[in-house]
Amino acid sequence: MTFDPTYLPPLPIVPELDLESDVVSLTAAIVDIRSVSHEEAALADVVERALQAYDHLDVARLGNSVVARTDLARAQRVLVAGHLDTVPEAGNLPSRLVTVDGEERLYGLGACDMKGGVAVALHLAATVPEPTRDVTWVFYEAEEVEAVHNGLRRIALSHPDWLEGEFAVVMEPSNADIEAGCQGTMRAEVRAYGKRAHSARDWMGENAIHKLAEPLQRLRDYVPRRVEVDGLEYREGLNAVGVSGGVAGNVIPDDAVLTINYRYAPTRSGAEAEEHLREVFDGYEVDVVDLADGALPGLGKPAARAFVNAVSGTPAPKFGWTDVARFSALGIPAVNYGPGDPRLAHTRDEYTPAAQVRAVAAGLRSWLTG
Amino acid sequence: MTFDPTYLPPLPIVPELDLESDVVSLTAAIVDIRSVSHEEAALADVVERALQAYDHLDVARLGNSVVARTDLARAQRVLVAGHLDTVPEAGNLPSRLVTVDGEERLYGLGACDMKGGVAVALHLAATVPEPTRDVTWVFYEAEEVEAVHNGLRRIALSHPDWLEGEFAVVMEPSNADIEAGCQGTMRAEVRAYGKRAHSARDWMGENAIHKLAEPLQRLRDYVPRRVEVDGLEYREGLNAVGVSGGVAGNVIPDDAVLTINYRYAPTRSGAEAEEHLREVFDGYEVDVVDLADGALPGLGKPAARAFVNAVSGTPAPKFGWTDVARFSALGIPAVNYGPGDPRLAHTRDEYTPAAQVRAVAAGLRSWLTG
Repeated sequence: MTFDPTYLPPLPIVPELDLESDVVSLTAAIVDIRSVSHEEAALADVVERALQAYDHLDVARLGNSVVARTDLARAQRVLVAGHLDTVPEAGNLPSRLVTVDGEERLYGLGACDMKGGVAVALHLAATVPEPTRDVTWVFYEAEEVEAVHNGLRRIALSHPDWLEGEFAVVMEPSNADIEAGCQGTMRAEVRAYGKRAHSARDWMGENAIHKLAEPLQRLRDYVPRRVEVDGLEYREGLNAVGVSGGVAGNVIPDDAVLTINYRYAPTRSGAEAEEHLREVFDGYEVDVVDLADGALPGLGKPAARAFVNAVSGTPAPKFGWTDVARFSALGIPAVNYGPGDPRLAHTRDEYTPAAQVRAVAAGLRSWLTG
Repeated sequence: MTFDPTYLPPLPIVPELDLESDVVSLTAAIVDIRSVSHEEAALADVVERALQAYDHLDVARLGNSVVARTDLARAQRVLVAGHLDTVPEAGNLPSRLVTVDGEERLYGLGACDMKGGVAVALHLAATVPEPTRDVTWVFYEAEEVEAVHNGLRRIALSHPDWLEGEFAVVMEPSNADIEAGCQGTMRAEVRAYGKRAHSARDWMGENAIHKLAEPLQRLRDYVPRRVEVDGLEYREGLNAVGVSGGVAGNVIPDDAVLTINYRYAPTRSGAEAEEHLREVFDGYEVDVVDLADGALPGLGKPAARAFVNAVSGTPAPKFGWTDVARFSALGIPAVNYGPGDPRLAHTRDEYTPAAQVRAVAAGLRSWLTG
């Protein structure tokens, strides 16, 4: 083949989505439209066009986030949200539908986190034209990267009216169970200082790494709280997720740092969590480098109870942090409810069981039509 | 200026060395001939030529190491050795002779480690044509890099006869005092293992970093030995010089490692040192990654006593590791004796006090002529 410097490969053809097709086929079609964070445009385009085909939906767009609303003047408005983006590819495209141990599974980038949920939401947006409660469907960009890019956050800042509602479902993988609220997460650095010296004359220095013995012992001895809210038991966790220190093989180090991750029950505020962390590491320098408050499950609210009854689920607590916390911050109770095992999220071999995709579709349909 | 692609800059002109000039001026001249490890050729060339000018010396060369011997059939042969190379430049060339706090100091790359000592040795090789003991002067390459390149090691392997003698002086900086023998040094890794999990569900995992609490506590509690040999007190040291661990901010780490540096008295062999280390860290995986045995001071030997008496010094123990250990391994007692504070070695602001250069020259002269 002759090298032609003017040749440009054709743009990949992105097939239109058939929102009324089987939800598992729809999931596969969505997985096959690559949408790594910051590269969601192609998927957002077909999602927007597919939704615009339905007269019962008002469609709006902000960046690569798409919002579609029914406007039936129902007594209640609810939100159903899912992010369009995935973590980077890992040789796991295109999708593959295979049966393992008698279970039909859809493998592929984002199959678990969270294109199965996105497919269910798109399918219901199209096929439930007259829900018993008005619905705002939110398909948003950039959930897998720094919060500043998060599509839900951008909408909340510039079009808060798009997010009005009494209850929200975030379609993060939860094994087709209801996971309510979420725990807060805080990252902090605990530092020890010493005095540098040649390691052949250690008595001239002071070893900063040795000083980590004490905070590590406190971590070993720490008994995390278990906190009950709305009948759910949250389990806190306090862990070193990183440690580093050292100058050279012959130098007594003068600086060592533990990176701590504190997962705290949604009953604690960020300020309370920080205060607790400072108590635990009393005597050491503590710098909070990152913090995201949790979300109370809010299962006592009528809109939440109605959801739980409709999908016939037994709510469990959500230990990880998800965008339900953003709804919570807006005063909207929210739950996680989506197909896929959250422990498979971001793994090369992520998949979603076809049965869970169908179960979540049935659950949501029952809620929106009941 | 027009760009001329065929232009090559002239090679720097390396001035010949006048070995009979003042030792401080000679030190400055040697500092000004850049000889970073692996780039010692220019300095080795002028050293070789300068020594060849003296009929009382037999000069030989191996790579960029130069050996000059008197052959006066004296009853005893001694060795005086210094390395020609330096660590990399740090904006500290050319040399500067300045007076600080009333002290005349020669600043510059290698001034302390160890071109002051090299200058003294070259000056005496030239100006003591009839020493009372035969002398083998060794100027060698690549001491500051991995041992495999070390010039002294290479000579020992391919021309062991060049290193015959009853006593050796290594002109490493020792503040113009005699520092006898040297401690051994061992680097080892102590590992802890755990089980990876999401940090929001830490009870599913096992935190490897937390497990470092115990070995760090043992290091904090460790009381290093003090060992007396030939009237000198060696002080051992056991230190973490590095620590690392961590996968990501939301992952319970499954692996963490402490890098340990053990400095041990020359009365212990490497095998004994390793055994001791394994006792200290019993229950943990210990991998020895590097080991260099120490050297006994050997001050009881007549040749060593004669040296100590001649330079009127009070020997102190050498805590760091130096090439005296190589002589020791060849069965030759050796001491460190050179101008400059060893704590300034490898620093940007290294210098050697002019008075120490002169003192060491006087001490060696008294020994070789007494």
